[in-house]
Amino acid sequence: MKTRKLGREVAVVGVGMSQFGAFPDKSSRDLFVEAFKELRASVDKGLDPNDIEALYIGNYSSDLFEGQAHTAPIMADWVGLTPRPATRIEDACASSGVALREGLLAVASGAYDVVLVGGIEKMTNLPIAKVTDTLATAADVLFEIPAGFTFPGFYAAMATAYMHKYGASPEALMRVTLKNHDNGALNPKAQFNQTIADVMAGKRRSAEKKGKPIPTWADEMAFLQDDRANPMIAWPLRLFDCSPVTDGATAVLLVAADIAKNFTDDPITIIGSGQASDGALHDRPDLTTIGAARRASQMAYQMAGIQASDVKIAEVHDCFTIAEIIASEDLGFFEPGKGHEAAEEGLTTRFGPRPINTSGGLKAKGHPVGASGAGQVVEVFKQMRGQAGARQVDRDVDLALTHNVGGTGQTAVVHIYERK
Amino acid sequence: MKTRKLGREVAVVGVGMSQFGAFPDKSSRDLFVEAFKELRASVDKGLDPNDIEALYIGNYSSDLFEGQAHTAPIMADWVGLTPRPATRIEDACASSGVALREGLLAVASGAYDVVLVGGIEKMTNLPIAKVTDTLATAADVLFEIPAGFTFPGFYAAMATAYMHKYGASPEALMRVTLKNHDNGALNPKAQFNQTIADVMAGKRRSAEKKGKPIPTWADEMAFLQDDRANPMIAWPLRLFDCSPVTDGATAVLLVAADIAKNFTDDPITIIGSGQASDGALHDRPDLTTIGAARRASQMAYQMAGIQASDVKIAEVHDCFTIAEIIASEDLGFFEPGKGHEAAEEGLTTRFGPRPINTSGGLKAKGHPVGASGAGQVVEVFKQMRGQAGARQVDRDVDLALTHNVGGTGQTAVVHIYERK
Repeated sequence: MKTRKLGREVAVVGVGMSQFGAFPDKSSRDLFVEAFKELRASVDKGLDPNDIEALYIGNYSSDLFEGQAHTAPIMADWVGLTPRPATRIEDACASSGVALREGLLAVASGAYDVVLVGGIEKMTNLPIAKVTDTLATAADVLFEIPAGFTFPGFYAAMATAYMHKYGASPEALMRVTLKNHDNGALNPKAQFNQTIADVMAGKRRSAEKKGKPIPTWADEMAFLQDDRANPMIAWPLRLFDCSPVTDGATAVLLVAADIAKNFTDDPITIIGSGQASDGALHDRPDLTTIGAARRASQMAYQMAGIQASDVKIAEVHDCFTIAEIIASEDLGFFEPGKGHEAAEEGLTTRFGPRPINTSGGLKAKGHPVGASGAGQVVEVFKQMRGQAGARQVDRDVDLALTHNVGGTGQTAVVHIYERK
Repeated sequence: MKTRKLGREVAVVGVGMSQFGAFPDKSSRDLFVEAFKELRASVDKGLDPNDIEALYIGNYSSDLFEGQAHTAPIMADWVGLTPRPATRIEDACASSGVALREGLLAVASGAYDVVLVGGIEKMTNLPIAKVTDTLATAADVLFEIPAGFTFPGFYAAMATAYMHKYGASPEALMRVTLKNHDNGALNPKAQFNQTIADVMAGKRRSAEKKGKPIPTWADEMAFLQDDRANPMIAWPLRLFDCSPVTDGATAVLLVAADIAKNFTDDPITIIGSGQASDGALHDRPDLTTIGAARRASQMAYQMAGIQASDVKIAEVHDCFTIAEIIASEDLGFFEPGKGHEAAEEGLTTRFGPRPINTSGGLKAKGHPVGASGAGQVVEVFKQMRGQAGARQVDRDVDLALTHNVGGTGQTAVVHIYERK
């Protein structure tokens, strides 16, 4: 696949997200309004909503979750942007990552100068078993669903293939859990803003309160190895290897780079974008890698003119812990088969050489599926501008990456950001 | 809303559609393969599928109709285009009209030179009452659905408002039915390739067989006025005022205009595109016009640098007969309140000064909702190139227009085409 230069450069000048969690009294409309308000407040020089020319809304299935299709114009209406063009993008859990790409291409085309990219998902309306069924429609209903798979099963198959091929242990997966909860504990918007130690103590946000950078992991690991505390879901994936069911909304403001200074003196430029598709899991030669993510990242690196080693931080699609380890290899951060060692060695913590998921990731921040991709941009925007609060990494983040996956990798989309 | 010049010009060089109808043995995958095969055959100088760089798939709700979300990469897989980026676009019944716009902007951005735009919907899996419920999720579930409305009711409300304001009769609506069935009778792909006279005689395709251009409408009108033959659905809309429930798929090949000659010596250039959103029906000051369609067409005319009077033929969104009459006004073909007279006077037949829906429209060709927008492009491409067979209009079609509406007008998207 060729990667071409876009007609214009595009920058992120504002971001917003709702609280992530379970909100029985809120619809996706309410959550999107919450995200949009925060986005408005985030634009340094102010945002006149009349300047927004179009909306791209990533959403997996408000049809099935809320009985509401055709959500994009409703979101436009609820944030006062009628009659702007409003388009819903769906690529399963990569919906708003792909919506970001669509917004990017739309601005690059010259059609718009200012575009709002949103992501929404209101999942907790349904009973949990029904949520699992609803998510499973992102798999192949002719082949995979009749075989009895749901998503924990798919990723468990990937995990066992990975462990078999590379000798990885379940403890490597647990390291991802520990790290992402440590980060999520410092993210006030996270669904689980708790370390595992906090979970054990039945507390919330203790790390934040105490300013404690890294809790002792030994006791936490014992907790995660306890079948009662952390029950098995689909071997080797336990409860704490799985991202939660989440309500949430996210928003990103894209503008043509040549007018970015009207909005902020500190814009974040999107210098790379890649997207790829793949067949369903049953059709792939190797379960230890997600080919679409490899291709999407190659497209993005080529467009950006950088290498994996140049990337300072990344938000990756850790719907399950194994997914983060595989992503860290697919993106070229570590050699194939070395991602689990990197996790065990702490290379991907906030203090390591390659911080991954400083937001807490889907695992701890939460995974409102259609909103997660744009939510990743919220974190890199804040980290790159030094606005990530207690979880701010202690280095200059000139280059960052987001990696958003749909299904078991039938879609992957990667973006690269530069702070100039 | 501003209309800007796009970075590059984009042309249509191939089109395809499946048979429209009810196909219990086929999935949307099968139908899309059928459309793609026809598209390949339509490219004058041949198409190497490897040249296709991305797919945009318009689909309303395979989630609800087939229990299959994340359809775009599946469609890519089934036509052999994995690992190309594959994105689903949803804006209710305007899904593939908006997908066309996304494909247009993507090529204009420089990201791709060759893009496949598809539309799919497999509706007849569900019992008819369930189809009505499923379509109703495109309305506002917080306000409109609790009021007891489904889509025939919405358009009936628009029809009564229109009749009250402008003194139109139900017979004006029936004229649309007669015309579109006359056209559909000459479209071998149409779900109802029958004139109303054929319906009365229990025959199919008699007009085509006999080469009869216009059946006598007097007897047909009596048939449509008969409560037993044409039962009332939601006053004043009867059964034959409503588009049918349809399975079908459509496909359009877009390329950068500067390489169009590699595919055909007779490309059709997209010179105008507009899209707009609106609030739900209960929130609008006037039910006799669809504001989003007015805005979208103004954007498209402005971008194209033409006026409504320049357009030779149009495919418009006649989900109900009243919708075609309102569209003919919203697009500027006739003054507000004059569309019903134009229909009664036959101005919009194949032989009139302003042919509308020569394909048979959604009414007779069928309305596989997510596929309908791209299906409109199939017709204008053929008409503009003189390849529309027995329904070919007998004039030079240098400029044509498509008009695709989602819901009751929460989304509208308009494109203008030029044969140079």
